[in-house]
Amino acid sequence: MSKSANKSGKVYLVGAGPGDLGLVTLRAKECIENADVIVYDHLANPDVLGWARDDAEIIYAGKQPGESRTQQEITSLLLDKARDGKQIVRLKGGDPFVFGRGAEEAQEIATAGIPFEIVPGITSAIAGPAYAGIPMTHRAHNSHVTFFTGHEDPTKTESAIDYAALAKLGGTQVMLMGVEHLGVVTSEMLKHGVRGDLPVALVRWATTGQQETLTGTLSDIAQKVAAKNFEAPAVAVFGDVVSLRGNLNWFEKRPLLGKRIVVTEHESRRAR
Amino acid sequence: MSKSANKSGKVYLVGAGPGDLGLVTLRAKECIENADVIVYDHLANPDVLGWARDDAEIIYAGKQPGESRTQQEITSLLLDKARDGKQIVRLKGGDPFVFGRGAEEAQEIATAGIPFEIVPGITSAIAGPAYAGIPMTHRAHNSHVTFFTGHEDPTKTESAIDYAALAKLGGTQVMLMGVEHLGVVTSEMLKHGVRGDLPVALVRWATTGQQETLTGTLSDIAQKVAAKNFEAPAVAVFGDVVSLRGNLNWFEKRPLLGKRIVVTEHESRRAR
Repeated sequence: MSKSANKSGKVYLVGAGPGDLGLVTLRAKECIENADVIVYDHLANPDVLGWARDDAEIIYAGKQPGESRTQQEITSLLLDKARDGKQIVRLKGGDPFVFGRGAEEAQEIATAGIPFEIVPGITSAIAGPAYAGIPMTHRAHNSHVTFFTGHEDPTKTESAIDYAALAKLGGTQVMLMGVEHLGVVTSEMLKHGVRGDLPVALVRWATTGQQETLTGTLSDIAQKVAAKNFEAPAVAVFGDVVSLRGNLNWFEKRPLLGKRIVVTEHESRRAR
Repeated sequence: MSKSANKSGKVYLVGAGPGDLGLVTLRAKECIENADVIVYDHLANPDVLGWARDDAEIIYAGKQPGESRTQQEITSLLLDKARDGKQIVRLKGGDPFVFGRGAEEAQEIATAGIPFEIVPGITSAIAGPAYAGIPMTHRAHNSHVTFFTGHEDPTKTESAIDYAALAKLGGTQVMLMGVEHLGVVTSEMLKHGVRGDLPVALVRWATTGQQETLTGTLSDIAQKVAAKNFEAPAVAVFGDVVSLRGNLNWFEKRPLLGKRIVVTEHESRRAR
């Protein structure tokens, strides 16, 4: 991965995982440590940048609503740096190929003839619920799981999600992004026959010290979310597996959860 | 995590990821390094055991058809070791909460009052396709992904998967396990109106040096799998995203893929 070994650069599309530094993969850490350039999203935990070389160029790519760097600008940046022979880490929250436009970036890079590698990451769709004591599957409850994005407005006629089919399929369903559309999503599910007492949980800042979980039913969760002003970033889980949390909620019971702990520079460098 | 700090033991339900050692998380590696006892499945890459302490007790839990250790025996083993004050890693392929009975084991451990931690892992359902150049999502193709197990016989009347709803929902669909039922699964999908030319890919021994991918359509994939004797462990992906592989197939083009490389003990210990 050293610069001298490559005439052209290379882009590593790297999943930073859901937030907990322990859930970063060995390969992701290695890529970050070796990179000439790191281009990161707002959903990637910035603490991983502590592993970067002192002379690495670190670029924040934003992607929050209202921020100015467009997808086209990000892609152009990656291509320009790669043509300069750089080893580039494109760091994305969760997994690079689960929502979040990683596939489109990979296509542009591949089409430009630039070598690339995909480094899958732990998605918050699975780890978020797991840290709230909610397994994706359980033999007694389901044999399938569906991930969908709440980013699209479900009242738009061109919405790509068929809520009638989703309701009929059942199983565990996880919504990434789009907490602001939760009221419309739950109305659609109810309208298509999903039972009102289906357990639902929202997990916010999942896997970090700021993790918070809100539980309810399909009928009342949107109201609870509004009442508590429970904002993004959050994943929502719909399904009977949510009821297992009573027994399996291991992470939020930890005594130090949510506490701020000051770690000196020296210890922080040694950690993990 | 030291033994002296705990009167009772603790069980770490750890995902070993899909096979590539680089896709193991930092926390999983740390748990393996510290464990008194490691109980592992046949789907977990045994190379990770190289990180265990020299005096760690390593127990193979099997779980292939015909093997004798039952789920009840495995759970009893975990509880007995924990009551002896041991730090136990229960190592599972992929993610412990995505199929594979991790939820049931966690319930038994929790009910017994034994402390536990969940360490999510990279699931082969996502990383397998990614290493074959197939993203789970792409804005132009889908806004949802469904994972289901092919383990159940779809002709059984009590089958939990509603293939009519699955067909109607569309999106990307990933089948874990059950390659031997692929003919029945594809027949069910065709019967419920999924188009015969839907791209399908099977990825076998995903993310390892032995990775192989077989592509086809919903109409012909079962026949191809039978003709090539393409056996487990494999994940199957159904969806238009499979067509992106032509451009995005990065891993299988590597010059050393599938080659056996002898690494001396000393170098192997230093690696990663």
